[in-house]
Amino acid sequence: MLSDHFQNGIETAKLVWSRLPTSEEGESEEVNSSKRSDGTSVESLDYEVIENYAYREEQAQRGKLYVGYYVGVKWFFALLIGIGTGLAAVFINIAVENFAGWKFAATFAIIQKSYLAGFVVYILINLALVFSSVFIITQFAPAAAGSGIPEIKGYLNGVDTHGILLFRTLIGKIFGSIGSVGGGLALGKEGPLVHTGACIASLLGQGGSTKYHLSPRWLQVFKSDRDRRDLVTCGCAAGVAAAFRAPVGGVLFALEEVTSWWRSQLMWRVFFTSAIVAVVVRTAMGWCKSGKCGHFGSGGFIIWDISGGQDDYSFEELFPMAIIGIIGGLLGALFNQLTLYITYWRRKSLHKRGNRVKIFEACLISVITSVISFGLPLLRKCSACPESEANSDLECPRPPGMYGNYVNFYCSKDNEYNDLATIFFNTQDDAIRNLFSAKTFHEYSAQSLLTFLVMFYTLAVVTFGTAVPAGQFVPGIMIGSTYGRLVGMFVVTFYKKLNIEEGTYALLGAASFLGGSMRMTVSLCVIMVEITNNLKLLPLIMLVLLISKAVGDAFNEGLYEEQAHLRGIPLLESRPKYHMRKMTAKEACRRQKVVSFPRVVKVANVFSVLRSNKHNGFPVVDHGRNGEALVIGLILRSHLLVLLQSKLDFQHSPLPCDQGVGSIPIRHNFSEFVKPASSTGLSIEDIHLSQDDFEMYIDLTPFLNPSPYIVPEDMSLTKVYNLFRQLGLRHVFVVPRAPRVIGLITRKDLLVEEDDDSATVELQSTSVRAQRSDKE
Amino acid sequence: MLSDHFQNGIETAKLVWSRLPTSEEGESEEVNSSKRSDGTSVESLDYEVIENYAYREEQAQRGKLYVGYYVGVKWFFALLIGIGTGLAAVFINIAVENFAGWKFAATFAIIQKSYLAGFVVYILINLALVFSSVFIITQFAPAAAGSGIPEIKGYLNGVDTHGILLFRTLIGKIFGSIGSVGGGLALGKEGPLVHTGACIASLLGQGGSTKYHLSPRWLQVFKSDRDRRDLVTCGCAAGVAAAFRAPVGGVLFALEEVTSWWRSQLMWRVFFTSAIVAVVVRTAMGWCKSGKCGHFGSGGFIIWDISGGQDDYSFEELFPMAIIGIIGGLLGALFNQLTLYITYWRRKSLHKRGNRVKIFEACLISVITSVISFGLPLLRKCSACPESEANSDLECPRPPGMYGNYVNFYCSKDNEYNDLATIFFNTQDDAIRNLFSAKTFHEYSAQSLLTFLVMFYTLAVVTFGTAVPAGQFVPGIMIGSTYGRLVGMFVVTFYKKLNIEEGTYALLGAASFLGGSMRMTVSLCVIMVEITNNLKLLPLIMLVLLISKAVGDAFNEGLYEEQAHLRGIPLLESRPKYHMRKMTAKEACRRQKVVSFPRVVKVANVFSVLRSNKHNGFPVVDHGRNGEALVIGLILRSHLLVLLQSKLDFQHSPLPCDQGVGSIPIRHNFSEFVKPASSTGLSIEDIHLSQDDFEMYIDLTPFLNPSPYIVPEDMSLTKVYNLFRQLGLRHVFVVPRAPRVIGLITRKDLLVEEDDDSATVELQSTSVRAQRSDKE
Repeated sequence: MLSDHFQNGIETAKLVWSRLPTSEEGESEEVNSSKRSDGTSVESLDYEVIENYAYREEQAQRGKLYVGYYVGVKWFFALLIGIGTGLAAVFINIAVENFAGWKFAATFAIIQKSYLAGFVVYILINLALVFSSVFIITQFAPAAAGSGIPEIKGYLNGVDTHGILLFRTLIGKIFGSIGSVGGGLALGKEGPLVHTGACIASLLGQGGSTKYHLSPRWLQVFKSDRDRRDLVTCGCAAGVAAAFRAPVGGVLFALEEVTSWWRSQLMWRVFFTSAIVAVVVRTAMGWCKSGKCGHFGSGGFIIWDISGGQDDYSFEELFPMAIIGIIGGLLGALFNQLTLYITYWRRKSLHKRGNRVKIFEACLISVITSVISFGLPLLRKCSACPESEANSDLECPRPPGMYGNYVNFYCSKDNEYNDLATIFFNTQDDAIRNLFSAKTFHEYSAQSLLTFLVMFYTLAVVTFGTAVPAGQFVPGIMIGSTYGRLVGMFVVTFYKKLNIEEGTYALLGAASFLGGSMRMTVSLCVIMVEITNNLKLLPLIMLVLLISKAVGDAFNEGLYEEQAHLRGIPLLESRPKYHMRKMTAKEACRRQKVVSFPRVVKVANVFSVLRSNKHNGFPVVDHGRNGEALVIGLILRSHLLVLLQSKLDFQHSPLPCDQGVGSIPIRHNFSEFVKPASSTGLSIEDIHLSQDDFEMYIDLTPFLNPSPYIVPEDMSLTKVYNLFRQLGLRHVFVVPRAPRVIGLITRKDLLVEEDDDSATVELQSTSVRAQRSDKE
Repeated sequence: MLSDHFQNGIETAKLVWSRLPTSEEGESEEVNSSKRSDGTSVESLDYEVIENYAYREEQAQRGKLYVGYYVGVKWFFALLIGIGTGLAAVFINIAVENFAGWKFAATFAIIQKSYLAGFVVYILINLALVFSSVFIITQFAPAAAGSGIPEIKGYLNGVDTHGILLFRTLIGKIFGSIGSVGGGLALGKEGPLVHTGACIASLLGQGGSTKYHLSPRWLQVFKSDRDRRDLVTCGCAAGVAAAFRAPVGGVLFALEEVTSWWRSQLMWRVFFTSAIVAVVVRTAMGWCKSGKCGHFGSGGFIIWDISGGQDDYSFEELFPMAIIGIIGGLLGALFNQLTLYITYWRRKSLHKRGNRVKIFEACLISVITSVISFGLPLLRKCSACPESEANSDLECPRPPGMYGNYVNFYCSKDNEYNDLATIFFNTQDDAIRNLFSAKTFHEYSAQSLLTFLVMFYTLAVVTFGTAVPAGQFVPGIMIGSTYGRLVGMFVVTFYKKLNIEEGTYALLGAASFLGGSMRMTVSLCVIMVEITNNLKLLPLIMLVLLISKAVGDAFNEGLYEEQAHLRGIPLLESRPKYHMRKMTAKEACRRQKVVSFPRVVKVANVFSVLRSNKHNGFPVVDHGRNGEALVIGLILRSHLLVLLQSKLDFQHSPLPCDQGVGSIPIRHNFSEFVKPASSTGLSIEDIHLSQDDFEMYIDLTPFLNPSPYIVPEDMSLTKVYNLFRQLGLRHVFVVPRAPRVIGLITRKDLLVEEDDDSATVELQSTSVRAQRSDKE
């Protein structure tokens, strides 16, 4: 059936194919360059697993040793990602804690003399920190704004947002989040750490940053999108592991929330990366214990250890816990909706006006935040310290910014504390610790908690979307633990049991709000357990998450999905849409005119086709022995552009360049075909050809993907979607129904043993069948 | 292109397709009925997602309300699985603890007078328990022998082992494991609990047990293999969650170890099931605390709580920990290899001889185990109790079978204990607790530990494969914690630091042996953390697992994979084999003669084709408008058999039965097409037709799957494998290369919004394209 000259090429390709180390699917996505309102452009990944003949040829020359080396490098890179992300996390933590600690210490020193002067100093320090952050972001790394998780999710789903994984984004993220978190805004450093991990991974994967001349030769190993994406997955897990010191949570986060194509082989590597992060962070913290890290240093590996808290629960408690779940779902869904509206408005009207507006906005929010967090506790009347009975380790009162409960702030008497200041005029980590704390019954008045809840919720909504690196985990925990503690107070009062702790309810509240907003399930549950080190509460956290997610899902999508939509990142969900059941493959691509190339094509034709449309893949059609047409493969726009630019493969003759099996000369270094992450890649406008060039021909055989996946024209779109999504494809050919079936492949055909060569396979499979029929 | 009369059918099918609630892939596997040496037959799943026209018609009549009901039932069943598995676990636990507790109490009471009499009583009680177990298994439920995990893994991979999910297997598993574990054999109850969970799930999924008349009408909901498999996945997770009281570990176990096709939607449901199990088990244990459960009752929710143990670790400790990892890898791989040989020999020579040999074998092993576990401690000299200083809660000595360390057994003085009896003459749970225990330096002598290690390892290897329900988790933990504690003793002596606990090393040893034998990673790590409630050791467990898995992988495959191979369960691994790179799709099915049917086929032809070959799927070929052949779909052997048996669709005319869109009469109840799990289904030999019947015709259109997945003939087998494995297919058509490409489907085509009807979609997609080109 196949034409002779093509058959020749196919034979070669088959031979070469056999030695290709990376032949799996998992391709990425096409250009979709709609300009975004903030000036950055969303661009889909323009590279895929290079699967053409010539690339395989190059790979094959390297043999089995290379495969071993390749695997070794993967693990080594996983190690590097772990170390890098761990160190970045430690650096950010130490910097934030020191800035914040120093800020509170200075303010507290001054308010001993004048509250007004302290107020001004507090505002100014915060302003300076936030300004540094927003300045870095706007001037140097615009892609580092926000949490970055929607963008990373998009990248792993196959859509590359411009600039998201660059070296400058990494730098901007690290220093930007130090400023924004240290400056006391209502945001966290956890989302940015995930992005940081992903950036480190991506830079390693593409062999360093060429722009900053940090791309040594030995790093240039990974040429396929799949390998790079695997590394970025490791980076995400490392980020979560570092942010929450939750290695298992990191693995699950990567699995549940960010990746789209998970392979079980990858799990082990991701796990390794997380373990490395845990070791690095732990080691660094051990080093800090000797006091070398300033204000940082007192924290243990578990961030908010409440393992000494409530041990057991009774059935009556399940009712208030369910209420917490419902509140979490409602407030979480509301949060998603409000941030969606505000971000939409911000993008449409505010951020269009340039960087000055962004800077002004962030600074304004900083001042408002400072005023509220300093001012509101001033208005609050202090409460008397509880009698220090058995719990003598709880000192009361304490200065703000120090580790512990019962902050003394604007109190007239010595043994009084300000409950609002305890949570508001404090670093977020300490505030959460205070809210989670056990054995501190009625430390907070309901009035203070409500005030804080309303104010902080508003601040978190308003701060979301400003041009600074911003995570939503810690604000979410703050909001959730506030109403959780509120419910807990009522439970303690109502049930009058001794073993109920308000801190437990605060924890459940935190879980419920995160569940209601982010809609994560297993990963969030494990993260909550790992940050609080209390396994016994696991079933309760599960219950609360189930309820809050269900309630939230009734209203809208998760925070990251909503934000991804808004940013124009087209995520392919794991389920096909309901309406696809009505459609066939042919209907889905009805409006699309298919442009195909012949095997040997004139340069002028290629050029004009690439200019005249935006398609990213073109079928290549050749003629068979009997003159009938045959689809011989798929060629990518990006590869055609490389061919046009390099001109190496131009030939004068319109005849195919067959010189026998395996002898098609390789003129390319195949890293040419790989587009670096976060860049726009080549465009047809960049290519300039002379009149002579236009008259030349290219034989496309070595550069095409000889067998893309195909579907018959009347297959249901649901099935096509599953194929596309499960295998991570980029193009699927829709073809007419076949005239005949050459064979059926079943499980049996795929279970042939490795060590047989083809002759014995044949023999064996016959004899196996013979044996079977004998037996039956 | 398509023939008119077929076009008509396709239109109908499309219309119907739109309302089908379960149109996803995830089909199962063909019959592969090679007789096994032990008499049971391995049979692949003979049902798949029913995707034919007529089934969809039936489904469509039920509408959207039905979809909601369907989802509700799924969650309700998840709830039932959780409750059922939780209760089964509690029942087994209480029974085992009571039998074992009563056994030790009786023995201890007797040995106060005569050690010989006690010895005899001990042996007899164990023998009776083991005999009850092996009797149930051999006479009543042969499929309940062993752990069942390889079989469940096979089922979820698409291969149905005969009898594995029956009601009698469930009963046999529960009562059998009470006998075998209570009888003191070197095996655990955890693997069987996973199997128990899967059985409960499968019975719910197929609507009860028809044989025992436990199949109410309201249970008959799930007709597709995918839904049933999802339930079984939930059941596995529930089993692990119940066995180890580790809900997160259960979810991860199901994800990592057993399922082959994981969908993120499923995760949430599996998680829910695990949470329910946790609540049920916890509630039951709370109820037991009041003393209603006899010898059971003192245990907490955490099985072996060592959260009070070692808190921190130093870098020097990493070296001995790595050694533990290496030992674990070596001993684990050796365990797999030895059990493989022994099981092979047992199947080949021993178990062929019938049930009496099986019973005798189990009883012999029981006696040997009893003699060793009673006799060896007798030979051991007792040690003096440590001075009871601060750790006054450790009573010394204690009677055996009670909760605690320092067992008094055959000691001459009052303040002496027998260290070998502490671990050997004890229930396994208590022995592990003693090995993990902190603050008990040098409780065991190296000599005792070594003796125990060698003896127990041998017993575990020999016991594996006997005809009783047997898990390998607890024996693995026993073996691992013994050498772990041994290494720990040397570390304590060598490093002379105060905060090093031997129990920590025992835990790491347990993790390393399980890692080296079962090769699980993340799930095992989480299970170890959850059973010991010590999150701080997580990075160390990770490290040890990494090493032991890597070492083990150098020698052989994991325990479950080896056993699955041996039992003739052909698992499709997630990665294609290396040699597949050399092959094309056509080569893979080269020896297979494709038998296809015309659209309207004579009954006699169907009958003779089904008799003459063993194929499970047949292409159906029709003729297009211009007389050319067209493949119109796939018909399954099992569906043809149902058609032949029911005779409802026989017709006299050889013409297609088109009566317009949507009007093909439905004569079947579609549960007829569903084969129950673990049964052999219809065979061609069961069908008897008259001569008149043979002259009739059947129109296959309503019963065929109109668009199975297709691959071009020269696609690499690696790509075919990925398609097959990722989508969980059963048949793939190999077709000639297409003559032309009708369209390309890309991400854009799959992102059409739901709420647009087809007219606006068309408009919108045009305008979007126009906008884009304007911008660029």
